[in-house]
Amino acid sequence: MTELRTLKVALLGCGNVGAQVARILIEDADTLAARAGAKLQLSGIAVRNVHAKRDVDLPQDLFTTDADTLVKDADLVIELMGGIEPARTLILSALRNGACVVTGNKALVAQDGPTLHEEADKAGVQLSYEAAVAGAIPILRPIRDSLAGDRITRVLGIVNGTTNFILDQMDTTGAQFADALAEAQRLGYAEADPTADVEGHDAAAKAAILASLSFHTRFALENVHCEGITSVTAADIAAAKDAGFVIKLLAIAEKLHVADTETGGGEGVSVRVHPTLLPREHPLAAVHGAFNAVFIEAENAGELMFYGQGAGGTPTASAVLGDLVSAARSLVLGGPGRTETTTGQVAALPIDAAVTSYYIGLDVADQPGVLARIAQLFAEHGVSIEIMRQTIHRDAESNVESAELRIVTHRASEAALAATVEAVKGLDVINSVTSVLRVEGV
Amino acid sequence: MTELRTLKVALLGCGNVGAQVARILIEDADTLAARAGAKLQLSGIAVRNVHAKRDVDLPQDLFTTDADTLVKDADLVIELMGGIEPARTLILSALRNGACVVTGNKALVAQDGPTLHEEADKAGVQLSYEAAVAGAIPILRPIRDSLAGDRITRVLGIVNGTTNFILDQMDTTGAQFADALAEAQRLGYAEADPTADVEGHDAAAKAAILASLSFHTRFALENVHCEGITSVTAADIAAAKDAGFVIKLLAIAEKLHVADTETGGGEGVSVRVHPTLLPREHPLAAVHGAFNAVFIEAENAGELMFYGQGAGGTPTASAVLGDLVSAARSLVLGGPGRTETTTGQVAALPIDAAVTSYYIGLDVADQPGVLARIAQLFAEHGVSIEIMRQTIHRDAESNVESAELRIVTHRASEAALAATVEAVKGLDVINSVTSVLRVEGV
Repeated sequence: MTELRTLKVALLGCGNVGAQVARILIEDADTLAARAGAKLQLSGIAVRNVHAKRDVDLPQDLFTTDADTLVKDADLVIELMGGIEPARTLILSALRNGACVVTGNKALVAQDGPTLHEEADKAGVQLSYEAAVAGAIPILRPIRDSLAGDRITRVLGIVNGTTNFILDQMDTTGAQFADALAEAQRLGYAEADPTADVEGHDAAAKAAILASLSFHTRFALENVHCEGITSVTAADIAAAKDAGFVIKLLAIAEKLHVADTETGGGEGVSVRVHPTLLPREHPLAAVHGAFNAVFIEAENAGELMFYGQGAGGTPTASAVLGDLVSAARSLVLGGPGRTETTTGQVAALPIDAAVTSYYIGLDVADQPGVLARIAQLFAEHGVSIEIMRQTIHRDAESNVESAELRIVTHRASEAALAATVEAVKGLDVINSVTSVLRVEGV
Repeated sequence: MTELRTLKVALLGCGNVGAQVARILIEDADTLAARAGAKLQLSGIAVRNVHAKRDVDLPQDLFTTDADTLVKDADLVIELMGGIEPARTLILSALRNGACVVTGNKALVAQDGPTLHEEADKAGVQLSYEAAVAGAIPILRPIRDSLAGDRITRVLGIVNGTTNFILDQMDTTGAQFADALAEAQRLGYAEADPTADVEGHDAAAKAAILASLSFHTRFALENVHCEGITSVTAADIAAAKDAGFVIKLLAIAEKLHVADTETGGGEGVSVRVHPTLLPREHPLAAVHGAFNAVFIEAENAGELMFYGQGAGGTPTASAVLGDLVSAARSLVLGGPGRTETTTGQVAALPIDAAVTSYYIGLDVADQPGVLARIAQLFAEHGVSIEIMRQTIHRDAESNVESAELRIVTHRASEAALAATVEAVKGLDVINSVTSVLRVEGV
């Protein structure tokens, strides 16, 4: 057997994922060399504190605080520090030096993807970030390569395990958001400061990346409409359950044909993150706990789903090492790296232009003609009703009757829906609008 | 914008899938050119009869019976004729001419994969066959590229839509095999001669391909133990349902550590196709109708599932065109094609060495001590029982009692199980062994 050449691998960051990547690079060196066609030698690990306690035992002499020098001498750079700086500067420097870069940094890619790709293309090297979206699940590469000959029309993703765990807990146990969050924190599924997860920011960065690859156009974080799950109540979940739905936080990117709007009309892509009702028989409804899944609709392929672990040190390390071996193969075989094609220039649509179905819960007066008045008002706003269901409650003590009205609409624009809800609020027979939630998969 | 170069695409075969590939190549030419970085010009379609009726209208002047000449002049060759010859000779000729080849020919790849890959490597061109396994689902490329840094331990695939449709019908309606098959034929899910599907041959070829890519070792069709679904009865399905299981035809490839056996012991891969009981909560149990799904367990990634349409002209065309665009990109960018790594030399295990759980249905005499005798006999053969459940039936007319015994074992070798079943049959308290089925996912 011919002697394999050695490629130097610099690792930046040694947290949860980084420590597992380092461990596997050392423990599975022979297997990785066979797969890559080259020895992948971990040349160093850049950290802020070389003496910090790590998840796994690693040779102390690998650690350094001098990331710059480490990067300059590397053939392959793995960036797992997170955050914008110094990650951004180090990645650009690596690419300019002709190193392939693997990163799991969703915030950076969502913000600066175009700059990073431009630099990678100039240098003719690979830039890949499978670990940035849905952890261990192979999703970016299948979108880029396997679906390269198809046209994706819609992506629905459960891409944040923390919020899926919380919503799944609420659905299973009837718990309120705060209690489910506390349980998630106790089990290590949510951080002490859960803002990035529960407000949807993490999912929004992933939505921007998924949309960019799926629609061959650059979408940035500011193109993503983002709503988190903090206002989802146990009552919402119970009402949804009763109506045959489950509530999931979805990252959605879909192509829409819009009429004459401010965007000029034509084709556009709506990219958004929000709590969404899904029918219980939808494949995504069966994604429980902290698992992730991405559901794709394409013109020719039809419906596809990719399912797996969306977080965790070892699963995410699998995605990082898949990218690393692929990058190493490209260095061994020669020829320029393959990056994605962003040939399209599809407009990013504002949330007002999004078209979806809605679930609306109303607390109404129990008197004749209420349903008719509400239905008339929906019709006047051009919002078509699919299901309308009224439940009468009688308070045992006061003997006062109240009525609960649940409406599922056909697909309508956000703007039309918002106007309808405003008008409904003005009716004297309405006590309150208890929930307005979007519905997919119907 | 710079003028794109033109790559000539030869299409061999124009059946169900071929006709859709041709249609998309013509209709979506601009999109495909943007994705590939080159114009993909359909230079001709080789068929046996140029005047045969096709699924879609295509320009008559594209058709030819002279496949040899068409192949000689092509940069990219798509083979969708099926069968071994002349497909094999044409593919080898294309590779020797330096053309990249995309094929959906599972029988040929399962039989002659090593020869084809050797030729592709020699010529430095791409050979890909995503469409050969699970239709539209991106599965081979994710195994090869995305999981390149991981170690797959087990693959469980629903890779034949016909048999999944039949078993799903039997499960839903209680139908017998023959009736469900007739329904599948009526709806176009099964062919007039359903042998290749219902006997498991189609799934076996896909199992060989999945095993080869997953375990980086060449497995041929003769390494695959194959049992079809023709002997699965409505009673089997009902009993499985009653016990919380669903019966699926699975293509299975798993790494096993075997003790001293004739294979010499150590590590080996068991590749097999057979009807399998799965717990109803397993992700694969929710795969209904003619859909396909592949469930993968990997050391680092954990559990992954890929779901989608496993057949049909347009979905399968999506997989073909994904391969085509990727191959075209490699020609545009230059550098050799990337083929899979088959560096391992893991032994293919005979079916006797396979280790799995079993479901055994027994019709036994209703008398004291029967359970104890049967349990003792299992213990003597080293097969551990997980669940044992007895149901007593009393015939209303004769007033004779009979007992039905259902046993689910812990994991045991085929050899130990076979010996146990033989011994059980010899007991005087056993009326009959009603079913012996393998169980996964417990």
